[in-house]
Amino acid sequence: MSKSLEFLTEALRRLPGVGPKSAQRMAFHLLQHDRDGADMLSRALQQAVHAVHHCALCNTFTEDEVCNTCSDERRERQLLCVVETPADQLMIEQTLTYKGLYFVLMGRLSPLDGIGPKDIHLEKLLARAADGLVTEVVLATNFTNEGEATAHYISEMLKARGLRVSRLARGVPVGGELEYVDAGTIARAMLDRRAT
Amino acid sequence: MSKSLEFLTEALRRLPGVGPKSAQRMAFHLLQHDRDGADMLSRALQQAVHAVHHCALCNTFTEDEVCNTCSDERRERQLLCVVETPADQLMIEQTLTYKGLYFVLMGRLSPLDGIGPKDIHLEKLLARAADGLVTEVVLATNFTNEGEATAHYISEMLKARGLRVSRLARGVPVGGELEYVDAGTIARAMLDRRAT
Repeated sequence: MSKSLEFLTEALRRLPGVGPKSAQRMAFHLLQHDRDGADMLSRALQQAVHAVHHCALCNTFTEDEVCNTCSDERRERQLLCVVETPADQLMIEQTLTYKGLYFVLMGRLSPLDGIGPKDIHLEKLLARAADGLVTEVVLATNFTNEGEATAHYISEMLKARGLRVSRLARGVPVGGELEYVDAGTIARAMLDRRAT
Repeated sequence: MSKSLEFLTEALRRLPGVGPKSAQRMAFHLLQHDRDGADMLSRALQQAVHAVHHCALCNTFTEDEVCNTCSDERRERQLLCVVETPADQLMIEQTLTYKGLYFVLMGRLSPLDGIGPKDIHLEKLLARAADGLVTEVVLATNFTNEGEATAHYISEMLKARGLRVSRLARGVPVGGELEYVDAGTIARAMLDRRAT
């Protein structure tokens, strides 16, 4: 195989979820059928690496000092929602039910992978939540073991500073049939049952 | 989402097998954890697009006028093996059983996708096979419907010019147990049975 092709295949393997066979298939596809696409991807990578950094307020990716969401005057400044990733933030935005602001951890606590409080920017979150305007922090980390541990850690940290902290509700998913929902979720939904 | 990020996500979707969620995950991963990788991939794409073209003889990808395999003096010039892709050629090379040369179609006949004889460079193959040195053409296209149809078409075309044409043997795979091999393969193996 030619040197440029080997280098390209090796570089494509840096993408998450791409193994040797996929990388080879991608390289051949781009060179045979989509050289414009290859050129576009090259420029997009270069541009993103140079232009994108973290929002000074919410820590998400942005090209500006402060991201669009944080600088939007119409958002409610008293609510701060903590999510693990920009993708999680996008999902919450799509529900159109939340009008407050965000803080993006860019990860979760995971001692086994060596990811501690410093790696998820908890100092920055603390400063952000203590701006005097925020009255409630909504924890929207994932409901995995690591996400739950992260929520617990942040909750303790913020409550010690006198902030009000809440967590997304757990329960049976919309459209869920009890027969097919796991017992842990049903147990949680029973404990958290609400008056109608 | 920032413009550079949107552009990057869109560009990553040009890779085969990458949907919107994967593209987003890849973009976030590169920017958060592997900016060196993003930079490397950008350069690799640029280099490959500019340097890589098709071998004048066998049609595979190369940076030179003629690829390494075709210019290797030790290969047998009387055998020409026809494969669909460079990946197929690599697989045959790995068997260490073939010392002849190759012709890479860069595709297969597929009328439903609008891929006809011109798209798989059959004129170039014809010129290559008629160089006066080649005495046998080995058809090693895939054993799919389209690969078989391609082999049949090429076989007719080359035999009309008086060339000897062969096809890779079909049969029970090495290590195969009859109980788990499909009936079509067993029928073929029975028809092509060999004296021992």
